[in-house]
Amino acid sequence: MRAELITIGDELLLGQVVNTNASYIGRELGTLGIPLVRETTVGDDRAAILAEFRRAWKSADVVIVTGGLGPTHDDISKSAVATFFRAKLLLHQPTLAAVKERFKTLGYEKMPEANIGQAMVPEGFRALKNERGTAPGLLLHKQDKTFVILPGVPPEMEAIIQSGVLPFLKKTYKKRLLFIRHRTLLTTGIGESTLAEKVGDPKQFLHEGMTLAFLPRASGVRMRITCHAKTASAATRELALVERILRERAGNYIFGEEGESLEALVVKLLTEQHKTVATAESCTGGLISSMLTGVPGASAVYFGSIIAYQNKVKESALGVRRQTLERFGAVSEETAREMAEGALARLGTDFALSVTGIAGPNGGTPEKPVSTIWLALAERGARTITQVLHADYGRTANRERAAAVALGMLQKRLA
Amino acid sequence: MRAELITIGDELLLGQVVNTNASYIGRELGTLGIPLVRETTVGDDRAAILAEFRRAWKSADVVIVTGGLGPTHDDISKSAVATFFRAKLLLHQPTLAAVKERFKTLGYEKMPEANIGQAMVPEGFRALKNERGTAPGLLLHKQDKTFVILPGVPPEMEAIIQSGVLPFLKKTYKKRLLFIRHRTLLTTGIGESTLAEKVGDPKQFLHEGMTLAFLPRASGVRMRITCHAKTASAATRELALVERILRERAGNYIFGEEGESLEALVVKLLTEQHKTVATAESCTGGLISSMLTGVPGASAVYFGSIIAYQNKVKESALGVRRQTLERFGAVSEETAREMAEGALARLGTDFALSVTGIAGPNGGTPEKPVSTIWLALAERGARTITQVLHADYGRTANRERAAAVALGMLQKRLA
Repeated sequence: MRAELITIGDELLLGQVVNTNASYIGRELGTLGIPLVRETTVGDDRAAILAEFRRAWKSADVVIVTGGLGPTHDDISKSAVATFFRAKLLLHQPTLAAVKERFKTLGYEKMPEANIGQAMVPEGFRALKNERGTAPGLLLHKQDKTFVILPGVPPEMEAIIQSGVLPFLKKTYKKRLLFIRHRTLLTTGIGESTLAEKVGDPKQFLHEGMTLAFLPRASGVRMRITCHAKTASAATRELALVERILRERAGNYIFGEEGESLEALVVKLLTEQHKTVATAESCTGGLISSMLTGVPGASAVYFGSIIAYQNKVKESALGVRRQTLERFGAVSEETAREMAEGALARLGTDFALSVTGIAGPNGGTPEKPVSTIWLALAERGARTITQVLHADYGRTANRERAAAVALGMLQKRLA
Repeated sequence: MRAELITIGDELLLGQVVNTNASYIGRELGTLGIPLVRETTVGDDRAAILAEFRRAWKSADVVIVTGGLGPTHDDISKSAVATFFRAKLLLHQPTLAAVKERFKTLGYEKMPEANIGQAMVPEGFRALKNERGTAPGLLLHKQDKTFVILPGVPPEMEAIIQSGVLPFLKKTYKKRLLFIRHRTLLTTGIGESTLAEKVGDPKQFLHEGMTLAFLPRASGVRMRITCHAKTASAATRELALVERILRERAGNYIFGEEGESLEALVVKLLTEQHKTVATAESCTGGLISSMLTGVPGASAVYFGSIIAYQNKVKESALGVRRQTLERFGAVSEETAREMAEGALARLGTDFALSVTGIAGPNGGTPEKPVSTIWLALAERGARTITQVLHADYGRTANRERAAAVALGMLQKRLA
């Protein structure tokens, strides 16, 4: 079984939009047991689109296409599909009714004319209902192959994948699905090559159908073990064996597991231990908060944050002393400490994390260059811990790294 | 001139990592004047990588490859490059010295053995210095074509693109660069098809070499005009003509322009008007704050935020009255109003935005279903404005949409 994905849209090639559809679809297909072996992005260009359809339809069992299904003149995918499969476009009454209904719900008096096109379906295709928009998904099953085209707007695509595409693939390819399982161990505080040295030659302990990958990131190196097996239990067993070896050899650096994000792990640990946390952020500007609140259920353990971007707010909302700011500066161990302790006291939690630093690209000085970032973890009834970061990876990555390290401080304390 | 991009990595196809490298490289090449016409992602598979090299090297003038250049066993790109170009791998002394130096700076006593491989360069290639990691970029120029391979870690890739790749391409293809210019008009409060009806048939006003695209998002539909021209001034002139037509026909719905993010526009307007803003966030959990502080220079106008994820914090840190929470609930117009007014008073700004809602997937009730989100904009010396959102696009998109609408309220007030 092989799946290919074609994403269509000039905006992707121009870099105006990040292709999150590709990672979403890759993850969903992989979990189902159909590996995505290739993804191609082409622009809104009829000849290029047709060439990709031809290539992918020849080499893969399942072809998924996203983009270009909207109601406007630049949405050319449906006509390309009709051409490629030599299928007439026919008016599909249930889809027309659904589109009209959607406009009514949104408060329109009548459906704009252009949307009649949304209800045209190539002969032989089924229409997959779109609960979040007007363009239905389209699916063709032919000679044991499947071709699917979906709108490119992420929430619409995701809804149709879940309600229409995955159930169809699961039923149709039941006997051919692979058991692909991964385990990803998250490390911190060690570089890629040093970690690889500790782990040793993977050929010595990987069986057939398994791979081990080292994936570096600003926040730490991940080790991903992958196993393709005939049964789910075989895959799970093989993964456990390799995981044991990795933990024996590099356990000190491993802080988390499989798909768990650091923030989800922190929320889980806090929940288990009936503890609560607040944050006080300066240069990360709400990133830690936004990561924690991205975890469903975070509200039981996360109380909130004071984002103190200005010194005035560090004083008024967090109680950082003016003399601390004047003597040591806003980016200092002392300020980080008082920010965390202020958040702890004012929000009444068990823990509080703080971050203050110079994310860049400007604002550095010779003594405190860009990327100097101080972090603190305050805890009710215990001493506040601090840490400093250097090494400039650019503004965005500096912020992300600081957020990850702060969450890592709390995770280590809870572990 | 045509560029192609090949991104390598199982983690991309498995959906463990979003391919931000593709959008970064597409944007940088497009701005330089070399259109990216295709992007392909393949896994860590030697045969698949070689097949892509073959296809891309035949059809494009510039081929950029990212990923698989690290020091571990799963990084196979460099050996594939050497095979493809039939080039021997030679030890490059300046790179070896740079790698050793980097380990010294990071506080290692000696460089791990595996990194000697980082200094091996295929014969005929130049090594492009990597200021943020150990794997250099590699570049070959041959028969007026260019092949570049870069590490996949985004900050490293970005640094080499800026310091090594773009300067080389600019100099080498000086006479062949196109002038590709875009203008993207941002709209809010109108659907894709209604907007297209207002604009009318684009064939009536687009000259050759121009396209118009409608790009829907949870936060609003964008209209992108693109022009390929022989000179920069011709491109600019053509764009201005079409922009005038779009503004005549749909000006009421256009709130911003070209590449400007809404948050950057808000920071710009506040700066011009010497005004300041704070936020009080509940279900968006720091997203608005994190968007605003992502804009360099935001600290002059953005004071900070109270993230009040729990009702207790809404009371203690924002001064929302307990009776308001009990009578109307945390997700209500009244609570949103008191949150915004509390942030205004406590952080001492000219404006304050608040958001409180049910992002989902759980927490809805029949009266207040998931995605009910209340927003408020408080202003010193003026009445507080409120707004409510419905329509469920999933947790992440609900949060993003709420953040965008909140920023839009402030932008309209300032415009």
